[in-house]
Amino acid sequence: MKIIEGGVCAAQGFKAGGIHCGIRKNRSKRDLALIVSDKKATAAAVYTTNLVKGAPLTVTKSNIADGYAQAVICNSGNANTCNANGVEIANEMCSLVAEATGVDAKDVVVASTGVIGEPLSIEPIKNGMAELNESISYNGNLAAAEAIMTTDTKVKSIAVSFEIDGVECKIGGIAKGSGMIHPNMATMLVFITTDCAISSEMLKKALSSDITETFNMISVDGDTSTNDMVTVLANGMAGNAEITSEGEAFSTFMKALNTVTVHLCRSIAADGEGATKLLECSVQGAQSLATAKAAAKAVICSSLLKAAMFGADANWGRVLCAIGYGTTDVDVTKVDVSFKSAKGQVDVCKNGAGIPFSEELAKEVLLEDEIDILINLNNGDFASTAWGCDLTYDYVKINGDYRT
Amino acid sequence: MKIIEGGVCAAQGFKAGGIHCGIRKNRSKRDLALIVSDKKATAAAVYTTNLVKGAPLTVTKSNIADGYAQAVICNSGNANTCNANGVEIANEMCSLVAEATGVDAKDVVVASTGVIGEPLSIEPIKNGMAELNESISYNGNLAAAEAIMTTDTKVKSIAVSFEIDGVECKIGGIAKGSGMIHPNMATMLVFITTDCAISSEMLKKALSSDITETFNMISVDGDTSTNDMVTVLANGMAGNAEITSEGEAFSTFMKALNTVTVHLCRSIAADGEGATKLLECSVQGAQSLATAKAAAKAVICSSLLKAAMFGADANWGRVLCAIGYGTTDVDVTKVDVSFKSAKGQVDVCKNGAGIPFSEELAKEVLLEDEIDILINLNNGDFASTAWGCDLTYDYVKINGDYRT
Repeated sequence: MKIIEGGVCAAQGFKAGGIHCGIRKNRSKRDLALIVSDKKATAAAVYTTNLVKGAPLTVTKSNIADGYAQAVICNSGNANTCNANGVEIANEMCSLVAEATGVDAKDVVVASTGVIGEPLSIEPIKNGMAELNESISYNGNLAAAEAIMTTDTKVKSIAVSFEIDGVECKIGGIAKGSGMIHPNMATMLVFITTDCAISSEMLKKALSSDITETFNMISVDGDTSTNDMVTVLANGMAGNAEITSEGEAFSTFMKALNTVTVHLCRSIAADGEGATKLLECSVQGAQSLATAKAAAKAVICSSLLKAAMFGADANWGRVLCAIGYGTTDVDVTKVDVSFKSAKGQVDVCKNGAGIPFSEELAKEVLLEDEIDILINLNNGDFASTAWGCDLTYDYVKINGDYRT
Repeated sequence: MKIIEGGVCAAQGFKAGGIHCGIRKNRSKRDLALIVSDKKATAAAVYTTNLVKGAPLTVTKSNIADGYAQAVICNSGNANTCNANGVEIANEMCSLVAEATGVDAKDVVVASTGVIGEPLSIEPIKNGMAELNESISYNGNLAAAEAIMTTDTKVKSIAVSFEIDGVECKIGGIAKGSGMIHPNMATMLVFITTDCAISSEMLKKALSSDITETFNMISVDGDTSTNDMVTVLANGMAGNAEITSEGEAFSTFMKALNTVTVHLCRSIAADGEGATKLLECSVQGAQSLATAKAAAKAVICSSLLKAAMFGADANWGRVLCAIGYGTTDVDVTKVDVSFKSAKGQVDVCKNGAGIPFSEELAKEVLLEDEIDILINLNNGDFASTAWGCDLTYDYVKINGDYRT
């Protein structure tokens, strides 16, 4: 497997682009993205579990119910959620894509991200559609990645190439989300494309399995969005024998998909609103996978630990405390905790109690911008990793007055 | 029922005091509190559900297993948690109280609050015990209330008088906690005293029932502490016929207890770390009590809503979103939301969608320091209230470098 350029345009037969159509006032910020496959693709998607769901999710769900899609349209600046006419607007977006590109309206994935509860006008989208369609190209990944950003400060894009039975396949993706879970940012969107031939059933299986270890293991602020969505389009243009069951080819595909999703997860967590540090919490020695996950998530979700990491304070008591309230079958007298970064590793807790450590080294370790929190529960064989970020003044600033 | 002065000393026969013994470096901050009842009292307590429990909780639990206690000792500055010799130290604190006051060591409630994982030296407590015992008096409530504070900025104290069968009884309490749930603050402690005669069984029943509507309904930052504890001592000195079963007297006692606990809850939430505003979220029209509670708690726990309240931003989409991820049986198309304060009320969402409102009035309403978030789920007859606070720059500042 090899990391390559190109994001959603890395795989054969995918064009992408993005323009400013006027949903956002800031004319220098693109706000409308389009991805189109030369051929109809198998498609899979997962959605937020929030009861409040953005209208675009309803429409997308219905459009890919048959397992196929060919295009993705996504606007930023407005989530099209909690509006009386949301579904109508989302359907209209699909029809506009169909008119401009010739793709069937029922093969369009539609997504929106931005403020909740403000009606989304179709006018700027309608007026911009011709320009948007002209903008798409096999090199248009960056424009699309930019157009889906809200409070993101960095473009999130990745692609890898891999081989199935000697045939080179590619998979790539873009993401937006300055936090997995920002209701009003409405929030995490991931679009993945591949030219690997894979049945829609197996694509769905691959995605559903992958997200339990990736996008379900990141958190910026504990708020689950109304518009979260991850979609994969697979157009089969690589020419490999279609993957229709588990086996070596499927495992290879899963690995490639996982490389893409883990990269996007880390990018999202590192670019969490106001974040200065990426936190990676690795738990091992758990009695069950559920416990490993619960412990890792509790730690990266703890506001107190997040604030301590911002302050480069080796406050391991907060790690232990989070494990204590996040799990039910941990023997706290067995827990070991270390902090690690490019500057080295510092062991701070052994068998649930503090051990002497160099505060100087700890500070040096924690001043880095990627911190690993290593936890051994010494109680079993299961492991899990979660990603998050620190809690900073800027998080409060960004969210204290988002609408106005 | 009447609000009166005196806190834990309001009820007959309770002395209290507090001194600086040297656990904290700052000599102007009291760090050791003592409450002593003239007579042995029935006692009840509830504890944190965190798997990581402070050593003092273990000792207290054992000491009041027989339903009785006569004194409370509490230090601030160190949580005596995750230390190898924690239980030994906590037991020694009880023995020191016994030596100084004559109370049986097995009748002492012991509590500690402060940093986790640093050994607590018995020396300053031993050296200060004589002075502490001399400091207690029937007017010593304030000194005790101060001595248990950590990052609290305000003393939290309340008392009420009430009548049982024509006999005047009193109940009062003090609390510390700049957040219900701050692991490393180790954190919320509440001591309540009453001269009402009530069996330990009924006292336990009253407390267990009360906290589900009070202390379990506040949150500052979603981190459940290792040292949370609420205790009530009832010494019977008011002379009423002992309450030994449910009925009118028990109901009256419950109401008095609830007045004390709700006041302390509001005080804790309003004084949340870095908080500038108290948030009270009242949910009505829920299909079940569990749903009403879940919705109210999700709203006051949402970092995004808390940041919006800090910014006086009427971002109701975040309220709806929190209801959406916090509950499972809400019809989001029926939900109404309003913000209310001393400046008036502004309705912002009707049937799950935004309605036009004056941004000017909303700003005025939200600039107050007590904000009510009113939610009607229009889906049933159950209601619940939760308390929290805004998320501010100062929360990050306080917690970015707590240990050093």
